[in-house]
Amino acid sequence: MPKERQGRPRDSQIDHTVIETVRKLLAESGYERLNIDAVAARAKVGKAAIYRRYASKAELAFAATVHDVDDLPPPADTGSLRGDLLVIAHRVWRRMNDPAARQVGPAIIAELSRSPGLAARFQQGLLAAERQSYATVLNRAADRGELAGPVDPELVHLLVSGPIFFSAYGYQIPMDDERLEAIATTVALGLTGTTR
Amino acid sequence: MPKERQGRPRDSQIDHTVIETVRKLLAESGYERLNIDAVAARAKVGKAAIYRRYASKAELAFAATVHDVDDLPPPADTGSLRGDLLVIAHRVWRRMNDPAARQVGPAIIAELSRSPGLAARFQQGLLAAERQSYATVLNRAADRGELAGPVDPELVHLLVSGPIFFSAYGYQIPMDDERLEAIATTVALGLTGTTR
Repeated sequence: MPKERQGRPRDSQIDHTVIETVRKLLAESGYERLNIDAVAARAKVGKAAIYRRYASKAELAFAATVHDVDDLPPPADTGSLRGDLLVIAHRVWRRMNDPAARQVGPAIIAELSRSPGLAARFQQGLLAAERQSYATVLNRAADRGELAGPVDPELVHLLVSGPIFFSAYGYQIPMDDERLEAIATTVALGLTGTTR
Repeated sequence: MPKERQGRPRDSQIDHTVIETVRKLLAESGYERLNIDAVAARAKVGKAAIYRRYASKAELAFAATVHDVDDLPPPADTGSLRGDLLVIAHRVWRRMNDPAARQVGPAIIAELSRSPGLAARFQQGLLAAERQSYATVLNRAADRGELAGPVDPELVHLLVSGPIFFSAYGYQIPMDDERLEAIATTVALGLTGTTR
């Protein structure tokens, strides 16, 4: 049996059922009221099967809302850094604006500061995938001759994802298409120094 | 007696003692362990006096860490939009990087989503003062002829404070002077469209 793929079909079915149940419970009654007993009862699986997979309620909610990140491809080439950044900005916003993610987001943020394991998984999962998208579109921009010199993908990650994150969890002002476009346009112009 | 200033000296002394005690307890043992009983005992004031001022533990921690915002003046004129934004960026970062603020920040974020009253106070206090600083430096930039047209202060608030907030509570990568400078430079260049 190949070492890297140990799960039997029945296990992956349990994974799927548990995650779907958590998403439903979050949408119905929010993060505060989520508990492992309710998940086990509703999903018809043993509590031990859940605890074997997730160490805490926060881990479970995290897995159910920060999902599918391994499949995140870099965006298709739009022909300009501005266009590529706008595609990523829309994607980041859609993910944060998902109803289950909005329910659990503030609690996840609080939990990240308490749980180094969860913070590491967030870094190595979603944030790494996002940073890879920024690195890819910066490489394209360099190939097009849009950039005068090298640009740190982490800086661009902060400059584009940061305002969207702040609008959702700090500033609490609504994000819309016009604002996403203004963010992508300003950052692209700031990085390229031209109005193209 | 003037209506706008009702507090007797003894009351403002209690305010000060309570807030200082909360800041000490937060620094000593964190937000999780903070409770009104401990604050009352340590500050030698009655619990009723605390509850009369603050409806919850979150409100108390908020008051103790998001403080002095009424006195926040707009930054002195540095002669350029880039320089002015850099002063604000440093100020925002210093406030978020304060030890008591770091202890309580993630819990406050979680509480903002549950407490409309706290969210309103955050909007009308710290965030309004910050936005006023951004509006002031944008007006100066317009007077200097740095801007081609009107710029929304909320957009610039998102673009400069957003990356700093995201680095502290989402991305969790360290902020430093070089990065603050890169943020201010990129945003200023994006808004002015020149390399000045």
